Amino acid sequence: MAKQKISAAPSIRRLPSYLHIIRQARDDGQEYISGTVIAQELHLEPIQVRKDLAITGIVGKPKKGYPIVALMAAIEHFLGWDEMQQAVLIGAGNLGTALAGYQEFHYHGLNICAAFDQDTAKIGKSIHGVPVFSLKTLPEQIRNLGAKIAILTVPSANAQAVTDQLVEAGITAIWNFTNIKLKVPDSIIVQKEDLTSGYAMLSVMMNVRKHAEA
Amino acid sequence: MAKQKISAAPSIRRLPSYLHIIRQARDDGQEYISGTVIAQELHLEPIQVRKDLAITGIVGKPKKGYPIVALMAAIEHFLGWDEMQQAVLIGAGNLGTALAGYQEFHYHGLNICAAFDQDTAKIGKSIHGVPVFSLKTLPEQIRNLGAKIAILTVPSANAQAVTDQLVEAGITAIWNFTNIKLKVPDSIIVQKEDLTSGYAMLSVMMNVRKHAEA
Repeated sequence: MAKQKISAAPSIRRLPSYLHIIRQARDDGQEYISGTVIAQELHLEPIQVRKDLAITGIVGKPKKGYPIVALMAAIEHFLGWDEMQQAVLIGAGNLGTALAGYQEFHYHGLNICAAFDQDTAKIGKSIHGVPVFSLKTLPEQIRNLGAKIAILTVPSANAQAVTDQLVEAGITAIWNFTNIKLKVPDSIIVQKEDLTSGYAMLSVMMNVRKHAEA
Repeated sequence: MAKQKISAAPSIRRLPSYLHIIRQARDDGQEYISGTVIAQELHLEPIQVRKDLAITGIVGKPKKGYPIVALMAAIEHFLGWDEMQQAVLIGAGNLGTALAGYQEFHYHGLNICAAFDQDTAKIGKSIHGVPVFSLKTLPEQIRNLGAKIAILTVPSANAQAVTDQLVEAGITAIWNFTNIKLKVPDSIIVQKEDLTSGYAMLSVMMNVRKHAEA
């Protein structure tokens, strides 16, 4: 199967921040929320918010906005976040430990059920309640757990070797926090996370500001 | 000053991954690289790559592609990565420690010169060579260091209070890894990092794949 392109990527990337705001409005007891309110909160254009939300299939009501319960359900269903996903964390270093403790994932149906590391000082312990196993037991554990998602935070030098094991063990989606471009069969989904993308945005905003002041 | 919108955000977010590939090509001894080669490496359309690179002002040569040295210089200058930036890290927990050790930042002119935490067990020590100071000394240290960028990784409950101190101490740009929408004066740049955005992309790709197979 050919790699699939996701054309609405920027819209999809914004959906979690919409969910965050919509959930707060619900917790405040509101029944409807308008695209304009969401746009103001996030410094976006209202037309952009309405376009983004339209990909989930929901339509707002004139003057009232979106019914909050239905809107949350539509976004979560579009993202597949209405079903619990089991994930394993590969690498229990600082980044892995931070991800294991990241509260937002629980809202989004992502359950990290096990972590793997080669450091004997970490094996047998737990990080934020997630048990840490030896990397040597990876294939059998993944089969036992039925996990389909792996979150990869190992050192770059080990990334491809571990990935080969993950694919062999039946993992179908890899969230790649290393800076290695992984070689995987076409059937495997890889989302590469690049922390420097956010720094690029910050840098350009600083540059624009500097020139505006000059 | 009104908040500025950065219209080419998706293009800007892709530039670091282009730099990564271009740097590898240079290290392999190549003098030119084509947009098509970059596109193949990243599973993008060549027209997209050429559009993205055009925002840096560079133009490729027919049949040869882009001269690598000039292309790297153009991207780095556009991003402001040709000048060293001093940043402070607020919060020396797992995420903060991971960021302090993130090698890619050094390529991009980002120098984390100090970290701050309230944990007395961490103060006086260092993380990946970055000294950790008491949060109580934040204002005077920031003034002494001349840092303009703060990388915020404190617990959400402390995020706004620490931000107020940062602004007071002269920080002009905040890279916000908390899930709090910070209240800052219009003159302060904030880039909010949302780790769940990447998970949203992974989820949608999994959904698309599932439906394609059904």
